[in-house]
Formats: sequence, C-alpha cells, structure tokens
Amino acid sequence: MPSWSSLLPPSDAFASRHIGPREAEIAAMLEAVGVSSEEALREETVPASIRSKEPMGIGRGWSEVEVLARLREIAGRNRVMTSLIGQGYYGTVLPGVIQRNILENPAWYTAYTPYQPEISQGRLEALLNFQTLVVELTGLDIANASLLDEATAAAEAMALAKRVAKNKSNLFFVDADTHPQTLAVLRTRAEPFGFEIVVGDPEQDLDASRVFGALFSYPGSSGAVRDPREEIEALHEAGAIAVMGADPLALTLLKSPGELGADIAIGSMQRFGVPMGFGGPHAAYMAVRDAYKRSMPGRLVGVSVDSAGQPAYRLALQTREQHIRREKATSNICTAQVLLAVIAGMYAVYHGPEGLQAIAARIAGLTAALASGLRSLGVTIETEAVFDTLTVRVPPQDAEAIHERAVAAGMNFRHAAEGVIGLSLDETTTPDVIETIWGCFDPACPIDALAAAADPMPGLSSAVPDGLCREKPFLQQAVFSSYRSETDMLRYLRRLADKDLALDRTMIPLGSCTMKLNATVEMTPITWPGFCDLHPFAPADQTEGYAELFRDLQSWLCAISGYDAVSLQPNSGAQGEYAGLLAIRGWHRSRGQPQRDVCLIPASAHGTNPASAQMAGMKVVVVKCDDEGNVDMADLKAKVAQHADTLAAIMITYPSTHGVFEESVRDICSLVHEAGGQVYLDGANMNAQVGLSQPGKYGADVSHFNLHKTFCIPHGGGGPGMGPIGVREHLAPFLPGRPERGENHAVSAAPFGSASILPISWAYIRLMGDEGLARATTMAILNSNYIVARLANAYPILYRGANGRVAHECIVDLRPIKDATGVSVDDIAKRLVDFGFHAPTVSFPVAGTFMIEPTESEGKRELDRFCDAMLAIREEIRAIENGKIAVEGSALHHAPHTARDLVVAEWDRPYARTEGCFPSGVEPFTKYWPPVGRIDNAHGDRNLICSCPELSAYI
Amino acid sequence: MPSWSSLLPPSDAFASRHIGPREAEIAAMLEAVGVSSEEALREETVPASIRSKEPMGIGRGWSEVEVLARLREIAGRNRVMTSLIGQGYYGTVLPGVIQRNILENPAWYTAYTPYQPEISQGRLEALLNFQTLVVELTGLDIANASLLDEATAAAEAMALAKRVAKNKSNLFFVDADTHPQTLAVLRTRAEPFGFEIVVGDPEQDLDASRVFGALFSYPGSSGAVRDPREEIEALHEAGAIAVMGADPLALTLLKSPGELGADIAIGSMQRFGVPMGFGGPHAAYMAVRDAYKRSMPGRLVGVSVDSAGQPAYRLALQTREQHIRREKATSNICTAQVLLAVIAGMYAVYHGPEGLQAIAARIAGLTAALASGLRSLGVTIETEAVFDTLTVRVPPQDAEAIHERAVAAGMNFRHAAEGVIGLSLDETTTPDVIETIWGCFDPACPIDALAAAADPMPGLSSAVPDGLCREKPFLQQAVFSSYRSETDMLRYLRRLADKDLALDRTMIPLGSCTMKLNATVEMTPITWPGFCDLHPFAPADQTEGYAELFRDLQSWLCAISGYDAVSLQPNSGAQGEYAGLLAIRGWHRSRGQPQRDVCLIPASAHGTNPASAQMAGMKVVVVKCDDEGNVDMADLKAKVAQHADTLAAIMITYPSTHGVFEESVRDICSLVHEAGGQVYLDGANMNAQVGLSQPGKYGADVSHFNLHKTFCIPHGGGGPGMGPIGVREHLAPFLPGRPERGENHAVSAAPFGSASILPISWAYIRLMGDEGLARATTMAILNSNYIVARLANAYPILYRGANGRVAHECIVDLRPIKDATGVSVDDIAKRLVDFGFHAPTVSFPVAGTFMIEPTESEGKRELDRFCDAMLAIREEIRAIENGKIAVEGSALHHAPHTARDLVVAEWDRPYARTEGCFPSGVEPFTKYWPPVGRIDNAHGDRNLICSCPELSAYI
Repeated sequence: MPSWSSLLPPSDAFASRHIGPREAEIAAMLEAVGVSSEEALREETVPASIRSKEPMGIGRGWSEVEVLARLREIAGRNRVMTSLIGQGYYGTVLPGVIQRNILENPAWYTAYTPYQPEISQGRLEALLNFQTLVVELTGLDIANASLLDEATAAAEAMALAKRVAKNKSNLFFVDADTHPQTLAVLRTRAEPFGFEIVVGDPEQDLDASRVFGALFSYPGSSGAVRDPREEIEALHEAGAIAVMGADPLALTLLKSPGELGADIAIGSMQRFGVPMGFGGPHAAYMAVRDAYKRSMPGRLVGVSVDSAGQPAYRLALQTREQHIRREKATSNICTAQVLLAVIAGMYAVYHGPEGLQAIAARIAGLTAALASGLRSLGVTIETEAVFDTLTVRVPPQDAEAIHERAVAAGMNFRHAAEGVIGLSLDETTTPDVIETIWGCFDPACPIDALAAAADPMPGLSSAVPDGLCREKPFLQQAVFSSYRSETDMLRYLRRLADKDLALDRTMIPLGSCTMKLNATVEMTPITWPGFCDLHPFAPADQTEGYAELFRDLQSWLCAISGYDAVSLQPNSGAQGEYAGLLAIRGWHRSRGQPQRDVCLIPASAHGTNPASAQMAGMKVVVVKCDDEGNVDMADLKAKVAQHADTLAAIMITYPSTHGVFEESVRDICSLVHEAGGQVYLDGANMNAQVGLSQPGKYGADVSHFNLHKTFCIPHGGGGPGMGPIGVREHLAPFLPGRPERGENHAVSAAPFGSASILPISWAYIRLMGDEGLARATTMAILNSNYIVARLANAYPILYRGANGRVAHECIVDLRPIKDATGVSVDDIAKRLVDFGFHAPTVSFPVAGTFMIEPTESEGKRELDRFCDAMLAIREEIRAIENGKIAVEGSALHHAPHTARDLVVAEWDRPYARTEGCFPSGVEPFTKYWPPVGRIDNAHGDRNLICSCPELSAYI
Repeated sequence: MPSWSSLLPPSDAFASRHIGPREAEIAAMLEAVGVSSEEALREETVPASIRSKEPMGIGRGWSEVEVLARLREIAGRNRVMTSLIGQGYYGTVLPGVIQRNILENPAWYTAYTPYQPEISQGRLEALLNFQTLVVELTGLDIANASLLDEATAAAEAMALAKRVAKNKSNLFFVDADTHPQTLAVLRTRAEPFGFEIVVGDPEQDLDASRVFGALFSYPGSSGAVRDPREEIEALHEAGAIAVMGADPLALTLLKSPGELGADIAIGSMQRFGVPMGFGGPHAAYMAVRDAYKRSMPGRLVGVSVDSAGQPAYRLALQTREQHIRREKATSNICTAQVLLAVIAGMYAVYHGPEGLQAIAARIAGLTAALASGLRSLGVTIETEAVFDTLTVRVPPQDAEAIHERAVAAGMNFRHAAEGVIGLSLDETTTPDVIETIWGCFDPACPIDALAAAADPMPGLSSAVPDGLCREKPFLQQAVFSSYRSETDMLRYLRRLADKDLALDRTMIPLGSCTMKLNATVEMTPITWPGFCDLHPFAPADQTEGYAELFRDLQSWLCAISGYDAVSLQPNSGAQGEYAGLLAIRGWHRSRGQPQRDVCLIPASAHGTNPASAQMAGMKVVVVKCDDEGNVDMADLKAKVAQHADTLAAIMITYPSTHGVFEESVRDICSLVHEAGGQVYLDGANMNAQVGLSQPGKYGADVSHFNLHKTFCIPHGGGGPGMGPIGVREHLAPFLPGRPERGENHAVSAAPFGSASILPISWAYIRLMGDEGLARATTMAILNSNYIVARLANAYPILYRGANGRVAHECIVDLRPIKDATGVSVDDIAKRLVDFGFHAPTVSFPVAGTFMIEPTESEGKRELDRFCDAMLAIREEIRAIENGKIAVEGSALHHAPHTARDLVVAEWDRPYARTEGCFPSGVEPFTKYWPPVGRIDNAHGDRNLICSCPELSAYI
C-alpha cells in the first residue's frame, strides 16, 4: 500500500541517522561551498560522461525495525547444529565479558588501524598480548599481529620460505594431511609465482634436497600427530625452510614447532573464542625464527619509548613489505584481523595457561573416550586419538545412514572420503554429545555401558607420540594471570579502550579509509547465533539464510556498481585486487593470450596495487601523473602503445587517490580495451560513486569493494576488512572457486570469505535504499568540499577537479609549511591529538600532505571543530614563521602532550604547559589524554621487542 | 552422567569468574585475617544457632553456555505478539544506539545512585534531560527523576495531595476511565491511610467540595479525551488538589496538564523507548506546581555550582522525605528508575520535539484510519478517535471470535468488558496492522477499499476536543536538537558515560548496597525480544516461558531463605517492605486482631523501615541499640511488654545495619512471636547469609530480597530495583494480588513487578548453584574482614561480632578524626575520588562514619588498592594532626581535584597541584578526572533549578 507507507513514515527511518548534517546545516554548507543545491554540487563534481541516469533499483530504504525483523528471519533459516566437521573450524566459547565489551563495543570496533600509535595504546597492548600468545605457543621468536586466515597464512609462509630459502628450488612440499582449503589456496598462489606444489606423506614422499620448503600439518587434518623432526633436519641440510601449520590449542599439550625445529609456524586462532561465523572473520597467526623477522609479511606490534622515555607500543618495521617493495613484493597483505586477534588474545588472558591447557586436555579426554566407545562398537579408527579429531572408516554402504542419523540428532560429521568420517571435538563438546555420536554409529549400542567404560582421562602422555608432549611452561607473563575474574577482565578491557580514540569520541578524517558510521542496527545481528555459530562447510540445506543474504548482497553490489557478477570470497581489499587480477589473467589465458602480463599502474597508486599485480604474475609498468594529479594521458598512450601485445590490464583508482573525479576515465578505459587489455578499477573510493556513477557501465571490467569502507563494516582497529569483487560477464567464469572443494582460483580458506560480517553491509544497503545511498554520496562530497572551503585560505589544496571541486576527500599540502618553518606533517598530525582528533591520512598518496576524508556521517559541528583546530594550528605555525618561537620550542614539536606534561617538575619550554595541553577550544573536563607522548619509531625498530616481558609487573 | 561431568568441568564455569579473589589470594587473606580456613571464618562469624546444616537444594552451578541455552528455550516459550492491549503499556522502538550504549553498557548499568555527585555528572545530566522533558510535556514547574510505575506514582500523588490540600477531607476521587491496575494500587495504598476512594465520571460524579483531591485520566483508559478544566476549578475552590494521569506521548499533541490547571501530573514514560518487558521496569514521572516541590516524593536532580563556581548537577533537597521524616513519612520511596528514565530522556533527545510530535501524529492518523474502516464495517465506536486508543462495542456473541481471529493473526486486543474491545496503537504500528484488524472484525471485509477510503491524516484539530490542542512549543532546549545523527548521539552518550565512575572502572565499596559483579551472561538475555516485547497483560498461554522462570525463581528464593512462598510483585526494596507489612497487617486482621498496629524498629534501621510501617498503618516504636550496635535486649523486652496487646511486628535487618551477625537474633524473634507479633527481616544484607543461614528457619516471618543487591541486578545508576518478598506459609494468603484484576494488596502496576530483569537473578542463582552461592557469601565475609585487618590500626572499626569478626561489611569510625582535626567524613569521601574510588556509604547508619562493603566480586589487588588509598589518606590526616598543615589548606579539604586545578593560573594552597591531583600511587595516564569540583549542595537547594536552560548552548 504505497499511499499508506508514504504518508506515514516510520519513526526509525535510517538515512537521516546515518547522514551527519541536518537540513539547516546542509543549506549553510552549500552556501559556504558556493553552490546553489545538492544537484548543482553533483553536476560540478561528477563528470557528466559517467553520471548515472537512473536509480540503481535497490528500492526504498527500510526502517531499522524492518531490517532487524528481516535479518531475524534470515538468521532463522540458518540451522545451528553441533559441528564436528573440524577441518580448521571448531566450536568455541566466546566469554560474555569479551563479547560485550570488545565485539559489541564501538570503542573497540570503530577504531582505525593503529598507525597513530599515541592514540592506539589500548589495542596495541591487546595485539602485543596476541603476539606473545603466538610466540609462547609456537616456541618461535617473533609473531605478527595476525593474518587473514589459515590458508592465506600458509601461502604467505610459502612465499616467505621461497624468499629466505638458501637453495634455488621451485618446489614446495605440502603434507597430504593438510586441510583441503589450505591446499587449494596454496595452489592458487603458487601458480603465478611459478612454484610447483608436491603433495605427499612427509615420511614417505618428501625429498628434502629438491624443495625450497615444506609444510607439515600438526596435528594433521585427520587428527594424526606425527613427529617431523627428521624431515626438518633434512630440509635444513638442504637449505630449505620448514613450515608447520599448527593448531594453537593443541600446542598447549604438544611440543612446540620451535622446539621441533620449524622455521615458520602458521595456523588459525579461531578456536580461541572467535565464533566460526560460517567461515570468518578469524585471525590467523604467523611466527618465525628471529632471522626471518624482517621478511615476515603482515603487521607487527613492537615496544618502543615515547618522548619521555616511557615504554610505548607502536607498529614496528613499517617500512617494509608492500610499502616499499611495491612491484617487488611477494605479498600484498595490508589488513590484519585486529578485532579477532584482540579477542583471541583476551581469551588467553582470561583463561591463562592452566585454563587453556584444561580446555585442551578436556577435549583430548573426550576424544579418547569417544574412541574407546567406537572401538567397542567395532568401528575402525584410522588415526590414534591424540587431541581432538578422529578419522574412522566404516563400510561405505553404512556411511550415509550414519551421517543421516547425525543430522537428525542435530550434528554434522565430516565427509572425509568414501566410507571415511571425520569427528572433531571442541571446547563446547559435552559428554552427551559423545553418547549421541555412539548412537549414530550404532543406534542399538549400550550407551550406559560405553559411558561407564569410557575413561576420559587416560593420561595424555600415553596418547601423544614419544617425545611430543609439551614440557615447557608457557604464558608466564603477568598479563596472563592477572585478569581471571569477570570484574578484573571488564576493568582491564575498559582501561585499554579508554586509551584509544575511536569513532565513538571523534571524527577520524582519514583519506581513503572512509571512517563512517557503523550503526548499531547494522552491528547487532553479527553476534546472533544464527549467523555466528555455523561451520563454513555445513551442508547447504542448513545455510539457506546465508544463501539468501549472499544473493541479495551480490545483486545489490551489481546494481550499485554496474557489474554482472560478484564473488564474496576475498576477505580484504588487497585480496580482492589479487582475485580480480587472477580473473583477468585467467581470461587472457582462456583466449590463448598467456603472454599478456603487463599491468599499467599510475604513480599515485596505493602500494597494494603493484604488489597484487606482481603476485598475479604480472609485470608492473608505471604510468606518470600530470601536475594536476591525473593520469598523464600522453604517457599512458605511449605505454599502451609500447606494451600493446603484452598488455594485460590497467589498475586505476576512481575517483583518483588524489581525491578527484578525473574527466578522462572513460577515455582511459577505451584506450586500454582497444589494446586488448582489461581495466581493474580499485573500489577504495566507491564512497564517492554509489548512486552517482557505475564503474561497470563506464568501462571498468573488475573492481573490489571495500565493504569496510563504503559499506559500513567497521575497521575493528585494523581489521577485519572484506573485499568482494564485481566483474563484467566475460570475467565471471574466472572468479574464485570453492576452496574446500579444491576449485580453481580460490583465494581464501572459506568459500564466502568473512561471511559473518556480511549482514552489516546487507543492512546498510537495505536501510538506505536508492535514495539514501545517493544522498549519502552527495553528503560525503559536500562535507569534503566544505572542508576545502574552510581551509583553503590557510592551507593549499593540492588537487581539484574540473570545476574546482574535490570528490569525497581532499589533499592539503603541508610541504610549503615544512620548507618555510620546519614544521613537519607529523608535528601537525600529533598536534591534532592535543585537540582530541585522530589525524588525517599522513603522506599518502603524496608525501608531506594530509588526505582528509570526512565522510557523510559527520555533521557540521564536528567538521567545524576540526577546521577550527586546523586553523588554530595554522596560527601556531604562523608564530614560527614570524620568528616568535623556534620550531624546536613549539607545542607542535612536542605534541602530543600528556598529563605528565602538567605534572613534571621542570618545564623549560617557551610556551605554557596549559597551552600545550589545552590548545584553544579544548575543555579540560572533556579532554582526551593520550597515554604516551610522541613515540620514537627508530628506537623501536633498532631494539625490536614484539612480545610482553616475562614475569614482570604489568599494569 | 555425573562421572562425566564431574571429571570434565566446562571451560565456562561461572563461580570463579564471579568471585574476585583467586585461590592464592584467598590463602593470603585468610592469613592476614588470622583464621585457618574458610570454614573457620564462617564458624567465627555466623552464630552457630542459625547456621544452615544442609545445602539449599538448588543443585550444581551451570555453565554460562548452559544457562544461555536454557534461557533461550524459556524466552522461546514466550510468544511475542503485536500487542494492542494498551492499558498503560505500548509498543515502542528503542533506538539501537541507546540500547547498545546505555542499556547494554556496563558504564551505565553498573553505576550507583548519584549520591556522590562529583563522579555522577553524566547520569545526572541525563536525568536532568528527563526532568526537563517531563516539565515541558506536563506544563508544570518541576518534575522528579522518576518513580516506580504509573500506579504507584498515582498513589504517591494521592498521598501528596492529602498532605498539601487545604481541606480536611479523607475522600479521593478517581476518574472511572483510569487503568484498572492504577485503581487497584490506589485502593491498596488508601486503606491503611484511612482514605476513601470514590470512583466515577468526573463530569457527573465529582463533588469537589467533599474531596481532598481527584485524579483525571488524560486520555482515559478507553482512549477518550475530556476537558477537566471546570472540575479542576471547582477543586481549587474547595482547597483540593487536581492530579492528572497523562500519557506523555499524547501530551505532544494535547494541551498540557499545567495549562489545564492541574497541580500534579503523573504517568508512565514507558513508551519513550522502554520495552514493555512484561510489565517493567519502566520510569514513571511526577511533576508538580512550584508550591509543592518540597513535598514531592522521589529523587530530584538539580543544578548547583562546584567549588570553582562552575555549574554542576546533584540530587537536590536530599534532606526530605523518608530520610528525615521516617515515621512521619507518607512515602517510603527510595529507588528511582534511573536507567529507564535515562533511556526515556535520550529517546526524546534523539527524536526532538518535532520527531516526538511526528510519532504521536502518525499514531493518531492510524487510529483515525482504523476508526473510519471499523465504522464502515458497522462497528460501534464508543470513544472518538483522538490519539491512540479506540474502545468499540460488538455483539457479545461475536467478541470471542474477533479475539480468536486476532490471536491467530498474531495480535492481542484488550478484553475491556463483555462485548467491549480495546484497541491501542503505538509507534510500532504499521498500516498492515490496521488492515489485519479490519479483517479480524470482518474476515470478508473489502480491505483494499477500506484502505483507499482511510484518511490517515484527518487534521488532528478536528479530532481533539475544542481547546485541547497543544499550541505551546516544547523542548526548545539545545540538548533536544543537538544529537540527531547516530554518530552525534553515540558521542554524546560516551561523553556522559566517561564523566561517571561505575563498576567497570573501580570497586564501589558501598555498605548496604552490595555493588557486586553484574555479569554479562546475566545481562545478555534481558534485551532479547522473548523477554522484552511482552505486554504484562498478555494471555497466559503466550507467557509460559515467564511463568516457568518465575516458578524457578520463587522456588530458589524459598530454598535460599527458608520461606514458603514468594511474591515477585514489589518493584523496589521499600515496596517489598511495604508489601510485607501489609501481609502482616492482613494476617492480624484475619485473626480478629486489627488493634495490632505497633511496629518495633531498632534505632539503627534504614529510613525506609519506619516509613513503610507508617504507610502500612502502623505506629513506629523505636528500640534502642546497645554500645555494641546490637539491639538492646533489655529495651526490646520492655517495649514488647509495654505494647504486648498491640504489637504487630518488629522490623530488623540481619546481619544488622552495623555489619554484625547479632547472636541474639533467634531470641529477638521468639520474644516478638511470644507476644503475638510478627518478624519482618529486612533482606538488604542477604548477601551475608545466602547458603549459610535462612531467615525463614530461624524465626523471621517475612523478608524482602533486594535482587539488585544480593542477586546481581545492576543498580542502573539508581534503579531499577526489585524487591520480591518471601513469607512463611501463614502469610502467603496476604501476598499482593493481581493489580490488573483489582485484587487485594496490589502494590505495583504489573503483576510480576519488573519482570524483564528477573532473568538476571535467575541466571545468577542457576550459574552459582548451592556451592557457588555459599562460597560467594564466604568470600564477601572474608573480603570485609580483610579490609578490617588492613585498616583497623589506622581507623577504629566501630562494631564487631562475638569473635571480633564483622559480617560482609564494616563501619569505620571517622568521628575521632573529625574531633581531632576537623577533617570531615565528606572530606575523606571526596579525597577518595582523587584516588579514583567511589566513596563507601557515608554517615549511614551512623553519622560521621564510613560503611564499607567490598562484596565477593573484588579481588585482593583491588582491595589492597583501596586500603592503600585509605592508609595514604590517614597519613594526610596525620599531617593535620601534627600541625604540619591546616585543615583548610589541605588537599582533603579541597578534594576532589579536577583538571582545572592543574590549569588555573593562581595556586595559593600549601600543597602542590600534583599532590592534590595525583596522590600516592595514582598514575597520571590512567587517572579518573572528576568533571567538577566539590559541589555546593546548600547553594543548589537555595536556588532550585531542576531542568535544562532554554535556548542556550549546551555541551
């Protein structure tokens, strides 16, 4: 009844809650910008050649109540079963105090990647806990702050092994008892690099002298635990690298990879409290020997000191990997899984070593009991019961009936092979689950008798192969024994959260990162059991809700982007780039043009672009930018002509990383197409396009969508990200296949990537509808142009579009200030902390500049507060220009100021303490105090410490 | 299978998470206390004469996963329907940002009543918003910070009217068109006071000259809106008081009670975003004319100034009502519904005046459309469609079929009377609900035609009786137009939360208040739809889950306390006292002893005790305490003898309010029983008894249980409370009846009080089990005795039990310090804020002392931090004793210190700023900064301001 609903809009319409500026503010801002209307702003900003003429077809925006009701229905169509499938995903208990105060707390989930360490000490400490946990469990020297999933971690380990191996082999050996999805991703990754994968039994088939590395699974996918020491020794003698894929919970009972001689360990921390979530997001881990630390991919948190000499955390060794390697990179990894790594670390903090060991021992005991009962029933156990998984063999004609009885009893067993059934137990397994399993194998079995005979505690050492019992104590650092009551844990989490600045306290005007509202209504469903508690390989008839949600989301992303097909598998933006380029590569090959391997990339591109191209087996050719920051068309033409026969693709970002809608985008696409190439359009800036223009319609062939930017998945303090790709029809056959089935082009461990956070983007699109989405884009552009209007007199705006407008972000040039006064871009970034702000993006894409992106979610009041701070800082700089104060003596130089600055006895600076701590407009009573002063990065990199101190006080 | 589960405890066993001290700490604390074991401590502390010999019979403690699964099952047995029952309870949309960041945020829900205003500015501001909202809607001068529910608010208004009326009448007139549950509670309350209730049509039946006051319902329970101006004028001429019960949402469209001449307005703010919750908790409101402000019951937030002259909020006019009136009180109200009032206030902040009006107008439009359709169907509409409710008459033989069709369609209509159906619409009503209603009345009706003919916007003025349209603008204060985007709202809520100290940052050692852990697992279910979205008068077959939960909880409370029956109706501790005394009164009367009306109360009793007795029609006789703080047995014997014929009851608290297990409790009970009296044992201190002793077994006849103390319902910043009562068998017939059916002794509007928070206590008891509960009690006693051990050398402990032990709390005597140095108990309380603590209970039950209750949830580290602070303060006091510093110049005198103290230019105090702000052990980087300095209470009471300033900046 359209007449009714239009006359009576619900009270919980969403678009006006998502969009920051109120109608009166919008009028004032349009006036300040100097345009007459929103429509006029769009006309002046977005080139006419690409403007959409029609609505996208998503329909009206639904109310919050409607969306929640619909999502409840969808979640209800997912059947939550007791999963015994294992294969890398296990039931786990997320402690309520961690769920509520981290996973459901905006102070944690709306935070950004800790590139500004002074306002990120809380999550940096949490990540250091995670790294310490990994180091302790693996027995290796150094661990990173998480990777995307176990399968990509294995692929990263393979690439790292290749780089550091002392031989020239191109063969990589993989234990046949490895999860199939890991093998699939290794195969995908190996092919463009030219590596050959050999799969076999390490004891039988590994010829150490012929490989650059080998992956051992510990325990294996079947549950078997083998001692790899002999093989590892042989590898080392041959100059090859030993990688172990290890279950971290098993490592609480087993000798660590480090003790066994491994060089690298990888695995998934999912079962440390992170819900299975139909495949993700989870945190994978990687740990390496000290010798390889500077080659390790991913982020690394380290300890350094601040300006007062106090210990302080920050990201270590930042100047490595794709940031500098670009086209020489062997990894494009950029996102960590921070929120999930924080959860896993806190899970260990809450349980402590003896708690973790008790969980693992309990599982091992249940597994032993399960095995003894099955043996009594005459079932053949293929693998000894050591930790959590049994592989059993039954007559093939019986298998189906057993699986059917299991499903009827609410359980899923693993279909390991014909007549082979896998059973993996976990933290949530109770004795009655064991009894039900027995009944599935033999409905007539005497359960009471089996239970009475079952000895759940056979003494672990008897089950574990000789010499593989863990003897070394672990997690002796104070943090792992200090927060065991819920009260203590709650306060610890609050204390850490309070150290950080997130969207719940201030705008985070990070160019290219789109720190917009992550609305509660979008976040609420992700912790519902109907989305959380599903195994990624659960049967399709149990996951119809997810299937429907994916269909909706795929069709909406197509409607928004103009593409024809979408893959939800890539679980980060960089992963999306990689998957998109693989599709292009596959397409060229399918047409008999394998020689097409040149990828054109503008000089302004994000570092992931050349890294992804390199990983997809392409050669990077850089295209220049002109003085306006646009692609230099003359150079492009020349490069296209030069590489016409081998041109595979161009990678462009639109609007450009310079924050401008380039007028020539259609021409660029045509030029490349005419030469037989494909266009990869980086979707990082989709927030300026949704509802206004469609890449799939103006010439691009493939894009990834950063769901964690444009589509409201929160940044989680530095992950999860989510990077589905859209393609035009001809590329659809080359999208990622299903990893667990070993299909081609699989890029993630789970078929739908980080499935459990997709309800966030689903909700956002459904809530906004056509009109709301287009309005949001317009407001993002208005907000950015308003900032330009307010700041342009004080700071030069580096690039503008045809009509003097910027897109959804703008670059403020601070180089002239540096030249004139010595005030650095960092000084200004840190001084903004004194005003209570997170700095804009620093020195990307142009060194010495700020890139500012306000997003549509900020209202005029917050924009003005930010502009006022920037203008006040400009006046502070003027005092240096005017010679009133030396830069070394200025508040800018000493920023950020801490409470310590108010306390220390001596104060020899030429400005007052209060000027430093309370710059103009900052109220003492609402001030954010950074817990540390400016951090010395070089010191930290010289003295690399990446885990917690042992046995010392930790507060 | 006990062998399994005992061998394999789950990883999420709860008791050790709830209990603060770790095993090693417990050993150290026992040693410090000087006892050999927990058992020895119990023996030395709890008199042998009352110690329980057997477990309570609750069984084992369940794991968190088990409890959540069971509660999901229970919630699933509650059927959530579209409720059109109305009668004071309406569907409403709680905005997600408010739900997550207030109702699900420990920073808000674990806070205490804002008696220490310096650390409570956030919730005080939120309450001032609430009061402003009420003042604006009602058009009266001053509003309190909420009352328990609409029915008790009406009763409070009646009592207030009696007190301030200028005539001597004992008659109170009640509009017949008033919700039945309100009438029931008015009748309960009137009887012991000797008031007579007259019910009738105000236009026909009200003889203003014969009454002391009258209650008009606006709109009426039937939906009718009548103009009461003539009757109010007549009342005023007769010196009587006009009370209006008004729906606050209707008031956005209707002329306010103040404009109509009312003296008092009351009502429920439930539909401002607070879920129906099967009856509560909700916030009721009361507003009065300025003349009556000092007689208004309940808490009142006011604006004053702090030591620096800055505006600051605090509770105003504290020195009134039961605090000083005691046995002269006409109200015992003590609890407000802070958390719910905060939500209602924020709902208005988020929607603003035009948003609220739009919600109301939409409901009115839908009601008009519903009415026009029903008329077309030939249904008789008894009341004009003005706002949200229609009362319709149908042939009695058709009514049942209509109700059946409604239920089949997922809707509940109100059974108003035979052949009379009530239909109340609300914010959640959609046009398709209207269409479904039409279909229920006539399954063959032409829905499309009715919809096409329905005009949802007939212009309200035409429906509202002449002169009753609201013309006056409202909510023009800045706060109601500043936070309309979710981002802005989120930051506002965070900013307020950050101003306050709650359990998520520090222990709150409030004697008698039991600020223990409110665990996440306990809190999670209360926002599930299966508990939230039920109307309190929904049919029993839709609420079987609740029925089961109540049965469990009642049986467990009986098992814990030794009583035979429990009523869940009283929704605060004081309400429980009142209900319990009414049961005693009823029992005496049933035995032909109406003359028994003397209630003995020890001098140390909480102020609510005498107030409750007074309200129950009893005369209070005070019994002395001896030097040890125990009941003076000689005086008790004398008083019992003196009043033997008229003795109704004694009210005692056990362990005593002095924190001691009196040895004589059995004797006291016997003495009173022998004289024919009954024993009311105040359950405020049940936290020292659970699992160790049972009041119902050692002589008490009735107790209330503060579920918000012992049983983990959070304090919510000052409410909700929940005060069920347990009684021995003979009193069971006199428990509260069902209010909505007009049964006797109803004390709350809803039959099960604040039903939706009962899952919290259910979960706590189920999680702990017999063993966990008893251990918790022991730990509460150990923690308290540990504090005694650490502090006794520095501060005298006022009272101890037989073996020198205290119970779960202890009184620290600060009067000698005051005498010797002039340092007041307040100075020490405020100085504790500088250390980051919430002060203990100040000057209760003994003026000039602290009562300290650590609860079992605090670990040794936090206890030590507190004791260290107390000892450091003792050293500061010593400096005054020693003449090193004058009290006026001391940090104690100027506490608490704010960031301003570090900033102000002049500093003329004899101690350093940093000594003031960072006393020993306080880290600059984790310091809690109070947003204001010490608040001047007298100034605020002299210049009473209890709502937000209009049209001025508000940050």
